[in-house]
Amino acid sequence: MINYPNGRKPMETGQRSVEFGRRGMELEKEINRTNQFYLSRDIAVIHKKPTPVTIVKVDYPKRSAAKITEAYFKLPSTTDYNGIYKGRYIDFEAKDNQLLTSFPLKSIHPHQIRHLDAVLRHGAIAFVIIRFNKKNETYYCPADKVVNYYDHTQRSSIPYSWFQENGWLIPSSYLKPVDYLVIVDRLLTQGDSYENRQK
Amino acid sequence: MINYPNGRKPMETGQRSVEFGRRGMELEKEINRTNQFYLSRDIAVIHKKPTPVTIVKVDYPKRSAAKITEAYFKLPSTTDYNGIYKGRYIDFEAKDNQLLTSFPLKSIHPHQIRHLDAVLRHGAIAFVIIRFNKKNETYYCPADKVVNYYDHTQRSSIPYSWFQENGWLIPSSYLKPVDYLVIVDRLLTQGDSYENRQK
Repeated sequence: MINYPNGRKPMETGQRSVEFGRRGMELEKEINRTNQFYLSRDIAVIHKKPTPVTIVKVDYPKRSAAKITEAYFKLPSTTDYNGIYKGRYIDFEAKDNQLLTSFPLKSIHPHQIRHLDAVLRHGAIAFVIIRFNKKNETYYCPADKVVNYYDHTQRSSIPYSWFQENGWLIPSSYLKPVDYLVIVDRLLTQGDSYENRQK
Repeated sequence: MINYPNGRKPMETGQRSVEFGRRGMELEKEINRTNQFYLSRDIAVIHKKPTPVTIVKVDYPKRSAAKITEAYFKLPSTTDYNGIYKGRYIDFEAKDNQLLTSFPLKSIHPHQIRHLDAVLRHGAIAFVIIRFNKKNETYYCPADKVVNYYDHTQRSSIPYSWFQENGWLIPSSYLKPVDYLVIVDRLLTQGDSYENRQK
């Protein structure tokens, strides 16, 4: 039997410790870390937008920084991430999901769907990253397919099988925990729907 | 003598009433209004990013919206505006200026200059919008020229004459108060530096 330095067996690979109340933060952090890597190697310039808040009251104490004392979260009118890669405009939203067999559509705000649809019309590379936490799988879902599903379904969720058919599993590594540009490259090489949409 | 309905003579065209403490808001509002017009006509999808804040404390009162009770303004690491137009990634910063003869470089954060430089390398259409409030002139300044000036000057400001030589006056109308896409179109048609940079 091996003795671990802190007396506890380390987590197995692929296992995830997600605290309740911090769900979603893990995916966001991993995407930020990946974007940071892309930026540091001058591969792409993609950032998360700040959380939109309505600021109501600000105190200006003498000799110190302005302090916001009353503010509220606002509904986002766009997606959370955008930027540029190989001269192309990149736009995406990311959501994690605690369910095993489906992804609830209410997790994506209607404004965000319309935003994805709009940027697609103008030639964007747009997609949604969905993580199935309990399966430890992260899917790249082309935005045109998500928008199309959203606009034509009567259901309130997307079944897991849809992701297996229409999504792409995003590879993960230490430096690039959510290496979504691998999928962007694959789709660009295949002369995929991004190019075809603009014809 | 004409009697005006509210008993006050309206401001002459070009005159501007800017309250102290709200400086800068006017330009931001006008750009937002222009972007809203572009969006509503499906011309371009360009948004202002939310103001970046660090949220420290949030109250969750029962039956009402979460209230942020302590937060601080963060320095922005990117520019304020980005989006897509004619398949191209658009990125810009906007600043107004109270001085008559120069624009202080400290108004633009070094991070924003490096960000503009990075997106240019990846093929963006990037620029800085500078308004000389007291002249009521709003200039489109190609980002490569701004970055180049910033990186090679010993001065702490850009003289007004530089804008006349290197910038483009942005036309204004009621629906499009800061109609910067007119300049983007002109530069794209001219096969300008945006295209040349990528060769």
